[in-house]
Amino acid sequence: MYQITVLYNHPEDPEAFDKHYREVHIPLATKMPGLTGYYVNWCEAGPDGTPAPYHMIAVLIAESKEAALGAMASREGQAAVADLSNFAGAGVRISFGEVTSEL
Amino acid sequence: MYQITVLYNHPEDPEAFDKHYREVHIPLATKMPGLTGYYVNWCEAGPDGTPAPYHMIAVLIAESKEAALGAMASREGQAAVADLSNFAGAGVRISFGEVTSEL
Repeated sequence: MYQITVLYNHPEDPEAFDKHYREVHIPLATKMPGLTGYYVNWCEAGPDGTPAPYHMIAVLIAESKEAALGAMASREGQAAVADLSNFAGAGVRISFGEVTSEL
Repeated sequence: MYQITVLYNHPEDPEAFDKHYREVHIPLATKMPGLTGYYVNWCEAGPDGTPAPYHMIAVLIAESKEAALGAMASREGQAAVADLSNFAGAGVRISFGEVTSEL
């Protein structure tokens, strides 16, 4: 399996970010061909009160690196990437790599 | 579902980090009670050559926040956290939050 992890910096307006993410970005991103999993992690402070390092973490799973990069490069993937400029002005880091299940 | 995301900064010696992670840390972390998923993302440069923002991303899944924090607070969880000092000297960020499946 291959994982693409999208780490969203804290936005100025978290409510506007979440609204756009739910109403616009998820419908766009779920159209990407070849994804087998798409998980959205709504981050909060840790149990000791440490602030969340990111506002949100999205995890995209595909069966192979080729499938994952193909999803990103597809027309639908490019539309999802282009949408980042509409809500993720605070910045985003994207991580790529093979993923193994250890349980 | 609840997700704990562990973001490992790039270590000075990636081979030593990976060896310790595989041989010591995974066996410790898999003993934590209450986890339903444990995924290890072996990060690499992106398709455009952008360096990986983190060396490794570990994703721990539990059925609820209570189960996830209980896993961390358990004797086995504390042993896994204590092991971080043996290989993660470059630093680690830990993120907590509810996770939703969108596919």
